[in-house]
Amino acid sequence: MAEQARDERFDHLFASPVRERLERGGYASSATPAADDAVPLTYGFPYPDSFPTAELVAATETVLEEEGADVLQYGGGEYVERLHDGLLARERARGIDATRDELFVTNGATYALDAIASTFLDPGDEVLVESPTFVWSLSVLDNRGAELTGVDLDEAGLDPDALEATLDAREAAGEPTPKLLYTIPEFQNPTGATLTRERRERVLELADEYDFLIVADDAYGELRFGGESPPPLAAMDDSGRVIRVGTVSKTIAPGVRTGWVVADEPLIEQIGTMAAGGTNTFTQSVLGRYIDAGHYQPTLERLLDGYEKRRDAMLDALERHLPPGASWTEPEGGFFLWVTLPEGVDTEELLPRAAEEGVTYLPGQRFFVGDDGRGTRSARLSFSHCTPEELEAGVAALGRAAAAQLE
Amino acid sequence: MAEQARDERFDHLFASPVRERLERGGYASSATPAADDAVPLTYGFPYPDSFPTAELVAATETVLEEEGADVLQYGGGEYVERLHDGLLARERARGIDATRDELFVTNGATYALDAIASTFLDPGDEVLVESPTFVWSLSVLDNRGAELTGVDLDEAGLDPDALEATLDAREAAGEPTPKLLYTIPEFQNPTGATLTRERRERVLELADEYDFLIVADDAYGELRFGGESPPPLAAMDDSGRVIRVGTVSKTIAPGVRTGWVVADEPLIEQIGTMAAGGTNTFTQSVLGRYIDAGHYQPTLERLLDGYEKRRDAMLDALERHLPPGASWTEPEGGFFLWVTLPEGVDTEELLPRAAEEGVTYLPGQRFFVGDDGRGTRSARLSFSHCTPEELEAGVAALGRAAAAQLE
Repeated sequence: MAEQARDERFDHLFASPVRERLERGGYASSATPAADDAVPLTYGFPYPDSFPTAELVAATETVLEEEGADVLQYGGGEYVERLHDGLLARERARGIDATRDELFVTNGATYALDAIASTFLDPGDEVLVESPTFVWSLSVLDNRGAELTGVDLDEAGLDPDALEATLDAREAAGEPTPKLLYTIPEFQNPTGATLTRERRERVLELADEYDFLIVADDAYGELRFGGESPPPLAAMDDSGRVIRVGTVSKTIAPGVRTGWVVADEPLIEQIGTMAAGGTNTFTQSVLGRYIDAGHYQPTLERLLDGYEKRRDAMLDALERHLPPGASWTEPEGGFFLWVTLPEGVDTEELLPRAAEEGVTYLPGQRFFVGDDGRGTRSARLSFSHCTPEELEAGVAALGRAAAAQLE
Repeated sequence: MAEQARDERFDHLFASPVRERLERGGYASSATPAADDAVPLTYGFPYPDSFPTAELVAATETVLEEEGADVLQYGGGEYVERLHDGLLARERARGIDATRDELFVTNGATYALDAIASTFLDPGDEVLVESPTFVWSLSVLDNRGAELTGVDLDEAGLDPDALEATLDAREAAGEPTPKLLYTIPEFQNPTGATLTRERRERVLELADEYDFLIVADDAYGELRFGGESPPPLAAMDDSGRVIRVGTVSKTIAPGVRTGWVVADEPLIEQIGTMAAGGTNTFTQSVLGRYIDAGHYQPTLERLLDGYEKRRDAMLDALERHLPPGASWTEPEGGFFLWVTLPEGVDTEELLPRAAEEGVTYLPGQRFFVGDDGRGTRSARLSFSHCTPEELEAGVAALGRAAAAQLE
C-alpha cells in the first residue's frame, strides 16, 4: 500500500492509548499477501454453507409479522426474552446455572471483551494473556491502555506453573497484581489447545489467592466433535471471579453479531453500564425466534460434522505434505490448529512464497505479546472455512513452500 | 425498588470511572413512577406504526436469498456497500461531501459517541456540553472519565457568547482547553432548539481559535416538517474539526441499531480502530437493500406527516391546558419540546402527582450537568410516541397536576 503522509494536525487531541499506538507505528502487521488463487487458511471464518439461511429468513418473517412494533422499538419485545432464555438454557447445558441478572447480551464477543476491559482497566493496568493468544483481543485490551504480559501455554492449555511464577515475580518486585487474566480455555485461538480440568482448578485457586478476575472467552466450546469437555471455568467457580464471554458467531453466523457475558450480578451490572447504547433488538429477536423454533441444536450438529470432516482433511494433509520435523496440534474441536515447522523456517518470511505456492495463513509470532521472538517457526492454520479439497491443496502448498525454504 | 446491600467484594478491581460513579451513588436518577395508565411523554420512542415492517421483511428475504453466505459472514457483502453508498448519498443531500474513507458505520449513535470518546478522551479530560443536553450522552462521556462543563443554550441553540466566555475563563485560569464540544445542533434533545446559521459560524470559528473538535450529534436533522434547515456544521466546516454522528433509529427504527460517523479520514481511522469488534452485517445488509429498493424517502415523508401531526396536537394541548405563566419551545421537527412551568412548580417533585393524574415526562433538571439547580421548573415532553389523542390527554393531566401544585 502506497503510504501517504498522515495528516497529523489533530494527533495531539487523541487519547493516550491512541497516541502511543501511533508512535509505535500501529498494531503489529496483520497484512497478508494478496493472493486470489491461494487457499485462505488465514481467518476463522465459518464455511459458507454452514449458515442456517432459510431458518433465519423464516425467523425474521415471524418476528416482524408477529410483533414488528416491539422488535423494532427500543428495548425489543418477547423474542428478545426468548433469546435470553435460550442462551441461559445453553449455558445450563454446559453446567452454568446463571440467572437473567447474570447475563448481558452484547453486539458480539469482541465488544463484550471491550466492555469488560472498560469496566476494570485504567490505562496502565496489567492484564495477563496466553502466549500465544488471539491477536484481536490484544488490540482491544491495548485500546484500553492495558499493559499485557504473556503466560506460557502448551497443548494442555495455559500453564498454571508459569502463571504462578509470573504472579510471584510481580509480587516479589512490588508490582501490582494484574486485575484480569484473559484466557480462551476451549479450543484456544490460535493453538486449538483445551485447558485440562486439573489446570482449571489451579487457575481458579490462583485467582483467589492473588485476587484477580478471569475473563474466559468461550467462542468454540460448543464445537467439540471428539473427546470429552472439562467443565467450563464458570461451572467450577465458587469465588465469583469468572467472567464468561460467549458468541453465536461460530454456531449461527458472524454476521448476526451477537455475544454475551455471564458473571455475577455486581459485575454484570457495571459491565452493562459501560457497554454504550442499546443492542440490536431486531437481530436479537430473530435469534430468539430461531432458538425458540428449535433450530440451534440441529444446526450445531450439522456444523460438528462439517468441522470434523475439515479437521480430518487438514490432519491427513499435514501428515502427507509437511517436511520431517514439523509438528502440529490435533484439536478435537474449534476452528484452528497450530503448526510448527522445522528449524530453519521462518513463517513470517515464508508467507509471500507460500502465497505464491497457493496458501495463506497467519504467522505464529503475531499471536505473542510484543515482539519476543517466539512463534517464528509456527503458524495458525484455520480449517473452518475451506472445503476438504482446498485444505488438502493449501497444506500441500505450505509443504512445498517450507521445503523450498529449507533447501 | 428495595435496596439489597451490593456485593462489594470486587469493587477495588473496577476502573476508576466505575469506582467514582459508585461512590457518587450512580448516575442521576432516571427513575420514573410506574404508572401503567399514564400517557408516556417520557422517552424518545418512535410511534409504533412508524416502522416500515413489511419493507424490512422483504429486504431480509432478498439479501439472505441472494447472498446469504456473504451477508452472514465476517465483513458482509455487496449490500453492506449499498448501505455505505446510501448513507453517503443522504449526507450529500444535506450538503456533506464525504468519501467512503470518511464514513464509519457503527452499532448505533450512542456507540458511535462512545467510540469517539474513547478515541479522544483520557480520564480527566474536559468536554463541553450543552446545558441542558441528552442525559444518556452525559453517561457515555462520564464512563470515559470525562469532566463535563455545561454551556448555556436557548431557543437559537448553543450560545456562542457563553461558549467563548467559558473558553476564555479556562484559558485565564490556566486550565487546558476542552478537547471536545458535544452538541446536538438540530432539534436538540431535550429542548427541540436548532442552532442558527450565524451561531454555527461562530462555533466553528471558536473551535479553530481554541483548538477543539466538535462532535455534532444529528439524530433528528432529517425530521424537519416545517421551516428551513441551516446547513449541518459538517457542511460549513473548512477546518476538519467536525465529527458528525448519524443514526437510522429515528428514520427507520431503533431496533436495527445502526449509526455512523462522518469525519476526516485521519480521525475516522482512529475512531474505527477504537470501535471494538465487527459490525452487524446482517442488519447492515438489510438496511442496504432497504435503501437500494427506494424505501428511505417515502418512509421519511410518511414519518414527517406523523410527527408534525403529533407536534401540532401537543402545541394545541399546551395552549389549552397549561396554567398561565407556562412557556414552551415550538420545534419545527424532531421528537421533543421543552416546557417551563410557572414559578412555584418543581417538575421533579411534581412527577409522582403527574403520574397519578395520567402523564409521565422527564424532569428538566436531569438534563443538566451536575446538580446546579437549573431546569427545576422545566420538563422534556416527547411528542414522538403517542397518538394525538393520548398527547392531548397527557398534557391535560400535566396541566391538572401543575395547577394543583400551584394552589
